[in-house]
Amino acid sequence: MNSFPSKIFEQAVNEFATLPGIGRRSAVRMVLHLLKQNSADNRRFGETIVRLTQEIRFCKNCNNISDAEICSICADPRRDTSLLCVVEDVRDLLAVENTQQYHGLYHVLGGVISPMDGIGPGNLAIESLLERLKGEVVNEVIMALGATMEGDTTVFYIYRKISQLNLIGLKLSSIARGVSIGDDLEYADEVTLGRSILNRTPYESTLVR
Amino acid sequence: MNSFPSKIFEQAVNEFATLPGIGRRSAVRMVLHLLKQNSADNRRFGETIVRLTQEIRFCKNCNNISDAEICSICADPRRDTSLLCVVEDVRDLLAVENTQQYHGLYHVLGGVISPMDGIGPGNLAIESLLERLKGEVVNEVIMALGATMEGDTTVFYIYRKISQLNLIGLKLSSIARGVSIGDDLEYADEVTLGRSILNRTPYESTLVR
Repeated sequence: MNSFPSKIFEQAVNEFATLPGIGRRSAVRMVLHLLKQNSADNRRFGETIVRLTQEIRFCKNCNNISDAEICSICADPRRDTSLLCVVEDVRDLLAVENTQQYHGLYHVLGGVISPMDGIGPGNLAIESLLERLKGEVVNEVIMALGATMEGDTTVFYIYRKISQLNLIGLKLSSIARGVSIGDDLEYADEVTLGRSILNRTPYESTLVR
Repeated sequence: MNSFPSKIFEQAVNEFATLPGIGRRSAVRMVLHLLKQNSADNRRFGETIVRLTQEIRFCKNCNNISDAEICSICADPRRDTSLLCVVEDVRDLLAVENTQQYHGLYHVLGGVISPMDGIGPGNLAIESLLERLKGEVVNEVIMALGATMEGDTTVFYIYRKISQLNLIGLKLSSIARGVSIGDDLEYADEVTLGRSILNRTPYESTLVR
């Protein structure tokens, strides 16, 4: 689809095609969909995008998206402030929140160390994590990063940095890796299955769910 | 994902989730992507959507999207004005244009007759098609609608309406239905394969491509 009969149409298609996972064909479909909507709806859609970057804020504490200086999770008095879960980005924070199994606070790094993409420790919210650990009373830091080379590198870097703080009584942990619930063993990859055997859990802990 | 830590974020996710083929998870991914863009880019994106419905026009002639009163296809003097290709919507027009095999004009119906969706002939640009045929010198009308019950109904309706005009020398045709090029016969559905046998093309016409 090289040329469109309308410049503004083409411009809109080009904008939608910059979104992740959206090719040119899907972008055309989206723009044609918008053309069928009434103009008030499209005005609201467009203005929401403009307002998004103007109004969104990042929590001073944990780097989560927020409408105020402190996000709703950090501001919630029912949260367990002694637990800190370190995640790569807001998407992962939302995923953990969705489980409804975690009631502590978060720290959003804003990425993982990836020299290939030019992302070093200085580009991530690691310094602010260390400052938090020095200032707040935290009992456990749970690393919830993806099981990739970049994720592991980041965990290792942060682990070393935290160790250097010599905080007495601070536990460091990682989310469990293993065979997904509902998955057949034969379909699990070898590395995951291997880890799930090495890090097997004693029965008393799995029976209490 | 029931609640988000930010209202404007949630609003943006809701807007993106109204797009065709976009679920909540993809919408979150898109909004997080926008948050990483600089605000000038997002402003342009948002404003493009607002401008889209304000500025887009539909060709007076053929109903195609356009920046002016007459679309670039109708205004192109190199186009064969004796051929008229009837399509359901702009997406289909773009698909035919992409083949670079057609150099006539179009007529965009804006849908197909579908009583289930409350779309009757009156909701489509059929009257304007008949007016065009009366006013312009057209030799052939090519129906390029989808091979669905709604498409067939629409073709039948338009066919009857055009016949009533008693235009001498006007040919009516439909795009060919048959086995896709590159497809194995055994995977083609029976109806398509059946039609492709009934409507077989003599060798001289297939050798000239």
